[in-house]
Amino acid sequence: MTSFLGVLGGMGPLATADFLKKIVENTPAQVDQKHVPILLYGDCTTPDRTANIVGDGPSPLPSLLAGIRFLNQAGVKAICIPCNSAHQWFADIEATSNVPVLHIARVSVAQVKIKNPLARVVGVMSTMGTYRSGIYTNALVEMGYKVLTPSEEEFNTLVSPGIAHVKANRVSSAEAVFQKVASSLLQRGADVIILGCTEIPIGMQRQCQLTPAIYIDSTEALAKSAVDLMSG
Amino acid sequence: MTSFLGVLGGMGPLATADFLKKIVENTPAQVDQKHVPILLYGDCTTPDRTANIVGDGPSPLPSLLAGIRFLNQAGVKAICIPCNSAHQWFADIEATSNVPVLHIARVSVAQVKIKNPLARVVGVMSTMGTYRSGIYTNALVEMGYKVLTPSEEEFNTLVSPGIAHVKANRVSSAEAVFQKVASSLLQRGADVIILGCTEIPIGMQRQCQLTPAIYIDSTEALAKSAVDLMSG
Repeated sequence: MTSFLGVLGGMGPLATADFLKKIVENTPAQVDQKHVPILLYGDCTTPDRTANIVGDGPSPLPSLLAGIRFLNQAGVKAICIPCNSAHQWFADIEATSNVPVLHIARVSVAQVKIKNPLARVVGVMSTMGTYRSGIYTNALVEMGYKVLTPSEEEFNTLVSPGIAHVKANRVSSAEAVFQKVASSLLQRGADVIILGCTEIPIGMQRQCQLTPAIYIDSTEALAKSAVDLMSG
Repeated sequence: MTSFLGVLGGMGPLATADFLKKIVENTPAQVDQKHVPILLYGDCTTPDRTANIVGDGPSPLPSLLAGIRFLNQAGVKAICIPCNSAHQWFADIEATSNVPVLHIARVSVAQVKIKNPLARVVGVMSTMGTYRSGIYTNALVEMGYKVLTPSEEEFNTLVSPGIAHVKANRVSSAEAVFQKVASSLLQRGADVIILGCTEIPIGMQRQCQLTPAIYIDSTEALAKSAVDLMSG
């Protein structure tokens, strides 16, 4: 009986493809049969997470729990959700699942010390929804870090439009705006920057490769944790 | 009720991630909710297709049909299999499925006339298993094309090792050997070349971008057909 990693994806679809690629890239396998079997429930019609957190958009929770139940019934070993904003509903998700659900922000925050043991100031780029949910800020402040986030104007004119660019396949347009936000956070004193929205590493791929000591890619952090869990 | 595209994947895992990316890239959507919902059954432990076709490896058929049954029970609208070699078992797969299953070789062959209406000679790069199965050669000869395939030595020293490189995440090593095979087919007179194994476009990504009129990417052909079907 094959042991599958469950993936609750489609939020967004390009981020899900990027997550699957990073699972493969972080698996030391020589042949197909040694890679991680994946069962993906990718319902991209799930209502927008940020629209619900910051405004009056419909709740994504029923869709999220439908996916969690589907993956549990199918018998997956554990579940990953390559969407940071969806972790606003993590308590309900965890309560519904009989199998472990990895928490993308927790595994990303754990990377800060590994990337830069001397880091004191951590920048976080995310959706407005993730920012409001506090999942990164609370965890980082608890660990003693100073947290920097984009200004409200930067969220509105750069971060949110950049995420929308990725969701519409305009990756190079996204790169330009994300880079401005990263420069601003570095100028303000960030030692490392967490890319805490799974669309952002797609736009910042080049920067992550050029200066890997600065950026923590939440998609990759989740992929690495998943590979560890599945090979354990 | 969300209408999902079923994907029988994991053969190999990087090719599956590439397929999902190409689905997204070929969907004219501006927001997550307008993309194609995906249900992926990615059992990469499925026995190697070519090892069974050319040798005495175990049959992948039970694994393939388990996936087809799973996707049917889950209520998908149609099924794609981003693995050319698995289409050796297409008749059994189609007989088991209650929903349409797209045929990767048929949709790829249909691209020849679109890419180059004057093409007469078609090169096909594939696994040895796909070559032996005849799925490309038979369809192309029926349509009046002359078909060129790698020599047995090229299969053994270049194509098969290149595919193994991709399955082990050594993409740049794959590029070098695939390019030699493509040059050889072009020198022998190929007007277009079908990349008839879903690992090959990953290694040949740069060539596909530089000379798009020459290469038919079977992964992309399948993705385009799937998007058409799901939006229809």
